Amino acid sequence: MIKITFCCTGTEPAPWLAGLRAALPQAQVELWQPGTTPADYAVVWAPPQQFFDEQPKLKGIFNIGAGVDALLRLRLPPQAAVVRLEDAGMAVQMAEYVSQAVIRNFRDLETYAADARAGHWTYYKPRQRNEFSVGVMGLGVLGARVAQALTHFEFPVNGWSRSSKALGGVRHFVGAAQFHDFLANSRVLVNLLPLTPETVNILNRDTLSRLQPGGYVINVARGAHLVDEDLLELIKSCHLSGATLDVFRTEPLRPEHPFWREPKITLTPHTSARTLRADSIAQIADKIAALGRGEKIAGIVDAARGY
Amino acid sequence: MIKITFCCTGTEPAPWLAGLRAALPQAQVELWQPGTTPADYAVVWAPPQQFFDEQPKLKGIFNIGAGVDALLRLRLPPQAAVVRLEDAGMAVQMAEYVSQAVIRNFRDLETYAADARAGHWTYYKPRQRNEFSVGVMGLGVLGARVAQALTHFEFPVNGWSRSSKALGGVRHFVGAAQFHDFLANSRVLVNLLPLTPETVNILNRDTLSRLQPGGYVINVARGAHLVDEDLLELIKSCHLSGATLDVFRTEPLRPEHPFWREPKITLTPHTSARTLRADSIAQIADKIAALGRGEKIAGIVDAARGY
Repeated sequence: MIKITFCCTGTEPAPWLAGLRAALPQAQVELWQPGTTPADYAVVWAPPQQFFDEQPKLKGIFNIGAGVDALLRLRLPPQAAVVRLEDAGMAVQMAEYVSQAVIRNFRDLETYAADARAGHWTYYKPRQRNEFSVGVMGLGVLGARVAQALTHFEFPVNGWSRSSKALGGVRHFVGAAQFHDFLANSRVLVNLLPLTPETVNILNRDTLSRLQPGGYVINVARGAHLVDEDLLELIKSCHLSGATLDVFRTEPLRPEHPFWREPKITLTPHTSARTLRADSIAQIADKIAALGRGEKIAGIVDAARGY
Repeated sequence: MIKITFCCTGTEPAPWLAGLRAALPQAQVELWQPGTTPADYAVVWAPPQQFFDEQPKLKGIFNIGAGVDALLRLRLPPQAAVVRLEDAGMAVQMAEYVSQAVIRNFRDLETYAADARAGHWTYYKPRQRNEFSVGVMGLGVLGARVAQALTHFEFPVNGWSRSSKALGGVRHFVGAAQFHDFLANSRVLVNLLPLTPETVNILNRDTLSRLQPGGYVINVARGAHLVDEDLLELIKSCHLSGATLDVFRTEPLRPEHPFWREPKITLTPHTSARTLRADSIAQIADKIAALGRGEKIAGIVDAARGY
């Protein structure tokens, strides 16, 4: 009998266990406890190192999120495939979160909201849509869906990724050679990159200065992509008009962090694309069943590449 | 020589006159002054009655907005066709304004924003998208574009209009007979109806009570569609979770109006879809040229119907 162990920090286990058991009635699904017998598959979020030290025969590790940067910093059983959630309801959430952030910057809706709180009825001149380019960094499942949503609203959309992709309506820039060109052609920057040694601190004074004047930063990937002080300085000097941030170097964001008090920063508590239990369970169950039939599955992480 | 007269309240005339002259070099384009000679075509926004009393030979009246309710209350030269702006850059603006309002309600982003201002890091349970139906009242050029944008974000979308329409991915309800059914199947209500004697006060205690619990109202059509006190009562009794309002019975909204002080109401100063000068001039010039060639044009208002 296939054994599946569940170890997800900050997640109520009962509904996940019930859902996995219903979806995989042939399997034994158990909540991990230190010292239990090794399992064949693991469903994890931010597990302790001890968890993997006790799992010598794992064939697959299912991460219930899109980013595996924290997981890859642990010592994992070398034979185990690391599998990311793919979409599972996250792509549409990311598209709607980023779209509303872009629209609110383009349409001055934060200014209108502040005016309304102050009882002011004031018009602002509409911006030119054709001069309002949005650059999307990272064109995986989430980035591609975000880019597609933005083209639907007729923004000029640029995409930047390591390898070449063809996305309708998106001007594509590839690799390090075209990165500065991508930045210089973008006014709003949306970060959806995986966090790897190559991308840590990629949003810094040098790169953010290359955005068009009035630039705006939307970070929905990882806090460690962004150099916090550099963003704050570029907002204070008015090169950037502001930022929407959903991820932070330390989460929860510490009470003394200046992001809380910068009115041009809109922040949310890592909620841009939440893991949806039913969709995730269905995806994991399908993949475990496929592996059992000896089939290939999508979403396996390349540990050397880091995503 | 064709003579065009321009009379738009609250609009800086110089760039419009220059644009119309450049687009219609054969025509004489003049700013209206009381007592000038009658013109062939008029480009108007909220003109005085005197303007039309002095225009016995007008062939066409071009309204630089989508709604003609105020215009149709004036005595117009009976032979003149009244022409509305069609789209001219307004449809995508309306789609983005409504989309962000729906997304912010669905994703609790107003609550997250209030939390951020208070320095709180708190998660809320995501809502079920398949239980979050959006009903769009009015499926003209703007309403159809809004409905299309919402289907892109995978919301269940209902549409209600007087005559039958086929819109992909939209569940359609037709006429008075299906109005209550439409309301009972909708959680968010988006109003994009023309203002006519049949639709004045259509958003009232009876109709809004029929929305699903937690209902939300987005009014981007006309203030007179909504009975203000009924909305406030249904918000206070928590049947409705709030509203986004861009239009009001009196604009600017009077300082003493309770909408300013209701935290569950987001209000903007009639800015959801602004008239874009270049797009509008191009559309008007094309239509005047087509009329000159004896061709039919789209966007002519049916005065009996009111839109």
